[in-house]
Amino acid sequence: MELSPKVFSREDAEFMSRALHLAERGLYTTDPNPRVGCVIVKDGRIVGEGWHRQAGGPHAEIEALRMAGDLARGATAYVSLEPCCHHGKTPPCTEALISAGIARVVAAMRDPNPQVEGEGLTRLREAGVEVGCGLLENAAAALNPGFCKRMKTGRPYIRSKLAMSLDGRTALSSGESKWITSEDARRDAHRLRARSSAILTGIGTVLQDDPQLTVRLPETAGDILPPARIVLDSRLRISAAMRLAGGQKRTVVLTTVSDKDQIRTLSDHFDIETLPAAPNGCLDLTAVVDWLGRREFNEVLVEAGPTLNGALLREKLVDEWIVYLAPVVLGNQARGLFELPNVASMAERFELTIGDVRRIGSDLRLTLRN
Amino acid sequence: MELSPKVFSREDAEFMSRALHLAERGLYTTDPNPRVGCVIVKDGRIVGEGWHRQAGGPHAEIEALRMAGDLARGATAYVSLEPCCHHGKTPPCTEALISAGIARVVAAMRDPNPQVEGEGLTRLREAGVEVGCGLLENAAAALNPGFCKRMKTGRPYIRSKLAMSLDGRTALSSGESKWITSEDARRDAHRLRARSSAILTGIGTVLQDDPQLTVRLPETAGDILPPARIVLDSRLRISAAMRLAGGQKRTVVLTTVSDKDQIRTLSDHFDIETLPAAPNGCLDLTAVVDWLGRREFNEVLVEAGPTLNGALLREKLVDEWIVYLAPVVLGNQARGLFELPNVASMAERFELTIGDVRRIGSDLRLTLRN
Repeated sequence: MELSPKVFSREDAEFMSRALHLAERGLYTTDPNPRVGCVIVKDGRIVGEGWHRQAGGPHAEIEALRMAGDLARGATAYVSLEPCCHHGKTPPCTEALISAGIARVVAAMRDPNPQVEGEGLTRLREAGVEVGCGLLENAAAALNPGFCKRMKTGRPYIRSKLAMSLDGRTALSSGESKWITSEDARRDAHRLRARSSAILTGIGTVLQDDPQLTVRLPETAGDILPPARIVLDSRLRISAAMRLAGGQKRTVVLTTVSDKDQIRTLSDHFDIETLPAAPNGCLDLTAVVDWLGRREFNEVLVEAGPTLNGALLREKLVDEWIVYLAPVVLGNQARGLFELPNVASMAERFELTIGDVRRIGSDLRLTLRN
Repeated sequence: MELSPKVFSREDAEFMSRALHLAERGLYTTDPNPRVGCVIVKDGRIVGEGWHRQAGGPHAEIEALRMAGDLARGATAYVSLEPCCHHGKTPPCTEALISAGIARVVAAMRDPNPQVEGEGLTRLREAGVEVGCGLLENAAAALNPGFCKRMKTGRPYIRSKLAMSLDGRTALSSGESKWITSEDARRDAHRLRARSSAILTGIGTVLQDDPQLTVRLPETAGDILPPARIVLDSRLRISAAMRLAGGQKRTVVLTTVSDKDQIRTLSDHFDIETLPAAPNGCLDLTAVVDWLGRREFNEVLVEAGPTLNGALLREKLVDEWIVYLAPVVLGNQARGLFELPNVASMAERFELTIGDVRRIGSDLRLTLRN
């Protein structure tokens, strides 16, 4: 069934672009919901705008309808995502659009959940609303890589962040890694944390660097839903003395240990979850990723050392590698990026693709995908 | 004494840009001379163009004057480099410009040799020619980084080319390095060879990879002055079985060995030069660079392994690092870029600056400077 005429005007594209821009305002706060924006247009003029701010709060369409008031009658609504037609924490947006008298709805993309995809648009069409879909679809999907992937696969979108020297080193032989990259690059990395549902690290990094894994971005201090902090710690080596034991939200420790006494001593400080082990005794990373999906995490940021990154690379569990490259040289004795079994021939190497490349301060930031 | 009024018209910039473009045609052939272009303009129209093709052949100004013929009288000559006023392999261009009746000369830059700088322009002014200098000077200097540096310091401009994986590896643990980068990147690297006066490598790379160090660029096959090939081989470990023993021009081997018998057995196949040793027994790299300057090499391309690159980095002898980064991962057991003494703290790290960044095929090419 073809719901969506694929012809749009120049004005349609302008208004949808505005809706995408509004959606982006929710970048740090909508979890586990998607970022969505809405623009209501009557006689070529914007009469209502809205964006989804946080789960449980009004959807973008409702905000825009409120602003438009009676002007919504006969107007066009541009939404960056297909309006919902089910009762969740809030009533369905389709009903609100219909009862406000909206004449036409243009959605950038359908709901990515294959179980509901298209139902909101069908409901609108059945109520006599003209419906279009697919305008600026790629940009809309890029706003919500985690939500989209999770709806389709049950797993979060996984980014791994690496900060390295020109010669591919993440730390000196002593373990010192503060700081390889510039302050600008580190601030950019905090923005990656801010947009993530969870930060994932390994026990090796915790014991070496004792990180906080909190978002420290002065400009948006009060306006971020703090990401969960998660440590992979198969043998439960973490201690209450680590900085991850403090902070606003408890850190989650994923382990293969199921011994209750061992767990009890740490559970004053951490949330401990026992997950299956892989044949090598480490956590089964596929089970970890499935667990992350069950927790409704959309985007997960990995900030880990060469062991965990090597394992994630081998198992192809990372959707996006973000590499900050600083123009400094640390030499062959410094520590590398990926612990891997020996690559015996070029045919066995791991291949990625370079996407975005940009300068961040004095450094470069590369985005790579499988 | 101010020779050069610094005010130029929009048309002046256009014609100089054309002269620079012509100069670039000599990129692969003018050694040890600079790349120079010339445009002659009468009543707003180009009446003559020329570029310097090879040492011993006519200079750019002479070519352009020939094309212009009688139209040169009263015309303006745009030259990418101050015209020569001395008798070299050809008579001085200043005299040719004067006797052709050129009314105005605009030079992009002065002769970089501090001993002669400005003399050509002075000679022209004394003969009643209007003179301007400094238009598009940076672009003109960038055409001849080697010639400019050598004229000022007696040393060539040194580029080191590195081809690495995302994780900073140049070869597998087995030594295999064919091929980390894409065919496009390798062709680009052959263009670097083609513009160089000499390719410099170390004996380690020769014994490991048995390279030819020739320019293999189908599109310009007959039109390249083949760069000299130079091996640093302090203990004279090279053998006549290596591919560097073959080829159009003999490979030069720089060594600290002065024993005549040892040299004699190799001198059927190589030109052997004995240079001073550093305290560690290796070749004194400063002496090597001075020798390269005495041989009138303008641009030297280093294609070497981690030992030589580490030493060159430490001694700050490289003007420009060209790094081809392929989006592949080889892992921590693979070989790194720079053999250096242990860097014990971040304060001891080596800092560079990122210049040009571009995509070459599926790879990135980074240019870095001190």
